[in-house]
Amino acid sequence: MTVNRQIHLIKRPSGVPTLDDFAIVETTTPDVGAGEIQVRNLLMSVDPYMRPQLDANQPLNAPLLGGGIGRVTQSDNPKFAVGDIVRHGAGQQEVFNSDGRGVQVINVDPDLPLTVYMHALGGTGITAYGGLLEVGALKDGEQVFVSTAAGAVGSVVAQIAKIKNCYVVGATGSADKKAWLLDEVGLDGAIDYQAEPLAKTLKGLMPKGIDVYFENVGGAHLDAALPRMNVRGRIPVCGMISTYNGGGEGVRNLSNIIYGRVRMEGFVASDFGHLNAQFQSDMTAWLKAGQVKYQETILDGFERGPEGLIGLFSGKNSGKMLIRLGE
Amino acid sequence: MTVNRQIHLIKRPSGVPTLDDFAIVETTTPDVGAGEIQVRNLLMSVDPYMRPQLDANQPLNAPLLGGGIGRVTQSDNPKFAVGDIVRHGAGQQEVFNSDGRGVQVINVDPDLPLTVYMHALGGTGITAYGGLLEVGALKDGEQVFVSTAAGAVGSVVAQIAKIKNCYVVGATGSADKKAWLLDEVGLDGAIDYQAEPLAKTLKGLMPKGIDVYFENVGGAHLDAALPRMNVRGRIPVCGMISTYNGGGEGVRNLSNIIYGRVRMEGFVASDFGHLNAQFQSDMTAWLKAGQVKYQETILDGFERGPEGLIGLFSGKNSGKMLIRLGE
Repeated sequence: MTVNRQIHLIKRPSGVPTLDDFAIVETTTPDVGAGEIQVRNLLMSVDPYMRPQLDANQPLNAPLLGGGIGRVTQSDNPKFAVGDIVRHGAGQQEVFNSDGRGVQVINVDPDLPLTVYMHALGGTGITAYGGLLEVGALKDGEQVFVSTAAGAVGSVVAQIAKIKNCYVVGATGSADKKAWLLDEVGLDGAIDYQAEPLAKTLKGLMPKGIDVYFENVGGAHLDAALPRMNVRGRIPVCGMISTYNGGGEGVRNLSNIIYGRVRMEGFVASDFGHLNAQFQSDMTAWLKAGQVKYQETILDGFERGPEGLIGLFSGKNSGKMLIRLGE
Repeated sequence: MTVNRQIHLIKRPSGVPTLDDFAIVETTTPDVGAGEIQVRNLLMSVDPYMRPQLDANQPLNAPLLGGGIGRVTQSDNPKFAVGDIVRHGAGQQEVFNSDGRGVQVINVDPDLPLTVYMHALGGTGITAYGGLLEVGALKDGEQVFVSTAAGAVGSVVAQIAKIKNCYVVGATGSADKKAWLLDEVGLDGAIDYQAEPLAKTLKGLMPKGIDVYFENVGGAHLDAALPRMNVRGRIPVCGMISTYNGGGEGVRNLSNIIYGRVRMEGFVASDFGHLNAQFQSDMTAWLKAGQVKYQETILDGFERGPEGLIGLFSGKNSGKMLIRLGE
């Protein structure tokens, strides 16, 4: 028997979640049964997509759904050895047993930190890669606009587009993040939408229009991009964070997609399993060459899961938000 | 020399156009020069897409841009004989000369009225055909929702979908049009959105969700359809008439396209030239077999062009709105 802690949703939030929507619950986890492994969590992922889940898919009084990376501590399953580092979707808890389904061993590159397997080499990375290259059908040298460009997905999108010789403008929500995009990431333009008029600034920065708008925000960002879309432009829709808590203005400029023959298309990371081998190879090389830079916001301590999720909606993170439980 | 009359835009409308935005101007048209034809207009088309043109593309003090059908009255061009019936884009005027570019001879089927070449066998027909079958990628037996389903495009969309064995629900703006859709066209369901709550009624009528939403309206119609879209659903966007005069609510439910992997895509009729031969063959057969029914609203008299355009925005038409100049 092992002491375990879980983060539960105890009531459905209205608007932005608050700490009292969650509770930390202590349980015990038995030793492994036949064919099982036991995993101790090392890192937990915190992502915007978790918010809409809280309205329906997320069961009450059960661990928050989400991804993580852990170490195998017991194994009665020949596919796993004690000490293996694994990626899983077992949610926000310290310890869990599994029959191995949905758990993948990661071959950690010794030159890369484990945390990158939670973002650039993990779900957010393949979301960016598949969303931009497959759904967005990016071509070399195109004009690309990325919202939440300093975020975990957006920053990878922007940098893949730069690797593909595109002209790339990113929108973000603070002067610090804008400076990072221009000075460290090397984008062609950046907009601090909290300080600059979004539509007007975008128009000035993208005189050749937009071929691909990578959509993470919705609302005013989408309304700013729509009139600038070039003919046969694409809008891969990864997220619409401005609408997740019920706020934001409605979108008024959609009719621009008609004459522009613009394609908007939604997707989720699990659509891209067929791209995974190529993605792992490309992204490992880009990270080692310094062609993809990243930021992380790491909160130390299992109990900070809810704080991390809530913080996403006030822009408290720079890049990927992670909860670290141990080494 | 032939006396001609033209309908000019004399000032840009704000909101719904009014009669004093237009003027009838008398001019003269010379006899044909080398290689030219002269055409006397018989029918002029009035279409929702003309409204956004009034804000920019439509020149002031020049004939209203638009399509029509006329008869060749003089020809110095070997491709045209006097008496030929032709389709053209020469706009709202009684008589015009042309070098023949943009003018196509129509082989009028003796069993069909000429007016169908302005709608089911014309621009609105191929818009419906290409939008539903190519952009919408319709498959046999799918669940289809059509807005402005009693309109010139929507009614053809709905009937093609029925021919393809789909379950079809249409939205329209009056009890008479709803009755026509149910009793004459034979749709599986119809909604009078002026009298019934759109989102709730749609949900009740489409318990299996929506695979293809053929979009002509935008605004509240789109917001009603989005939460009902099935995974990998398609929204071919033909028009957004609710937004053309600057009114309407913004769209709030777009985030539904993410998890549904829904594709929205704009298009215009000129995208479908490669489908034209198949379309003419299919649609002629469907019309003669009574599988595609239609309604027409015909205003007699050249000078009623502006009245026809304005009438579109108050639902004065049943089916295709046409101006008839002569036989």
